[in-house]
Amino acid sequence: VSIPVVSERSERTLRARCHELAPSVGDLDANLAAIDAALAEAAGDGIRLLVLPELATSGYYLTPEEALACALEPESPHFARWAGMLPPDGVLVTGFAERDGDVLYNSAAVLTTDGVAAVYRKTHLWDAEADLFRPGDLAPPIVDTPVGRLGPLICYDLEFPEMPRGLALAGADLIVVPTNWPLVPKPEGEHPPEVIQAMAAARASAVPILCCDRRGAERGNEWTEGTAAVGSDGWLVGTKTAGGVLDVDVALSPARTKIGERNDVFRDRRPELYA
Amino acid sequence: VSIPVVSERSERTLRARCHELAPSVGDLDANLAAIDAALAEAAGDGIRLLVLPELATSGYYLTPEEALACALEPESPHFARWAGMLPPDGVLVTGFAERDGDVLYNSAAVLTTDGVAAVYRKTHLWDAEADLFRPGDLAPPIVDTPVGRLGPLICYDLEFPEMPRGLALAGADLIVVPTNWPLVPKPEGEHPPEVIQAMAAARASAVPILCCDRRGAERGNEWTEGTAAVGSDGWLVGTKTAGGVLDVDVALSPARTKIGERNDVFRDRRPELYA
Repeated sequence: VSIPVVSERSERTLRARCHELAPSVGDLDANLAAIDAALAEAAGDGIRLLVLPELATSGYYLTPEEALACALEPESPHFARWAGMLPPDGVLVTGFAERDGDVLYNSAAVLTTDGVAAVYRKTHLWDAEADLFRPGDLAPPIVDTPVGRLGPLICYDLEFPEMPRGLALAGADLIVVPTNWPLVPKPEGEHPPEVIQAMAAARASAVPILCCDRRGAERGNEWTEGTAAVGSDGWLVGTKTAGGVLDVDVALSPARTKIGERNDVFRDRRPELYA
Repeated sequence: VSIPVVSERSERTLRARCHELAPSVGDLDANLAAIDAALAEAAGDGIRLLVLPELATSGYYLTPEEALACALEPESPHFARWAGMLPPDGVLVTGFAERDGDVLYNSAAVLTTDGVAAVYRKTHLWDAEADLFRPGDLAPPIVDTPVGRLGPLICYDLEFPEMPRGLALAGADLIVVPTNWPLVPKPEGEHPPEVIQAMAAARASAVPILCCDRRGAERGNEWTEGTAAVGSDGWLVGTKTAGGVLDVDVALSPARTKIGERNDVFRDRRPELYA
């Protein structure tokens, strides 16, 4: 039985924010300005980790021409500018349309004050995304940052239980999920279904998960506006403001997987029995 | 990318019941009688699939002597009697303390009118269970029964996302979970955490899940009484009676994994990226 890695970092609390932006579809300049403003606000509020939505630079229901026009390379000076706006030891995670030659990806960038620390390309594409983006062909990385080891996922990725599980087992202290959740029906009183997936994934691996959704109707499509922070016990924490800002103190602990005198959600696994 | 098996059976609906019994700890005769009564009642009510709790024959907080005294072998005449009480094409799934020589297992039996079709030995043991039971060393089987292909799990097994996922990918039409959920704190308005795990597991693999919990305080310990039926869309169905009986019509469909025009929760997997 293999015992997965858990970060060696000591017990600590991280002040984090999900900012549920409302990107303007196809309007790169407006979206860059909104990210600048969110970053400045977060730095002023003492936030160490800022998480923004999927495709924050472009919006979602794009034509191929719009997607291309909004797409950025990781070498873009915008990323360097954002890195420069971070507070000391601060981290930004944002979704963006990534351009690599003629190919586009639905990606998430993890930035520290040093610049782009990692880019993850969404591996599970939803619906018509496949008409715009190529799926990534690499599993998400564990990104060692000043706020901890972050594991990024993007939207539909989270609905494959292998994905958050894999990040947790690989040593992620915290899973960060830029997302655009299209509004779907749900029974009265229930959380959005994607939030239930996040709660279950967090509890199963005793790993906190931050999901930053988006807002603002776009070409007749509505969003769940389901931004959610889940603690390592699987319960929701924090309350989003009317302006779409969810601030939370995330408890990070290398001992988090021990859930009872005799049980540990990692050590109790039986990987030899898993297909 | 491997495409998992989905049962060839046609679209259909199955009348199923979870009966949340209150086993008497260490009192085999009383528990056998309660199972007899539940079986007779279910047959009279037109139930095709009856699911009973974990350790229904013995209770949970057992001394080693009590566990041994209550333990049954699959060859026990009690199983043959229960098989004989099933309606045509009926199925019973019940938890029981299993004896194999000097070794005990926390097991679930799947019975058809022909007798015991399969026994699954719990592979993830909770807390002091390890003092009484040996963990099973085989993954749960897919049991082909007249009501469909059933995948059994027992209690804590369900909290390892690999387990329901593995059963669904192996072709289970329906996952059945005899359980004893000790009462734990939860925020106001939330489902029990184990129910959230079940909802997420069902939705992730588009597979219905029936969890039969127990009731009745036992040696000062209380239970969640969280019996839950989850549809393949991840939402709870049915309402439990005051007597602990939850009847549901479970929709079974080989096409269930297709969740949109262009998406399928199995075909969209990227197993080459999963650890």
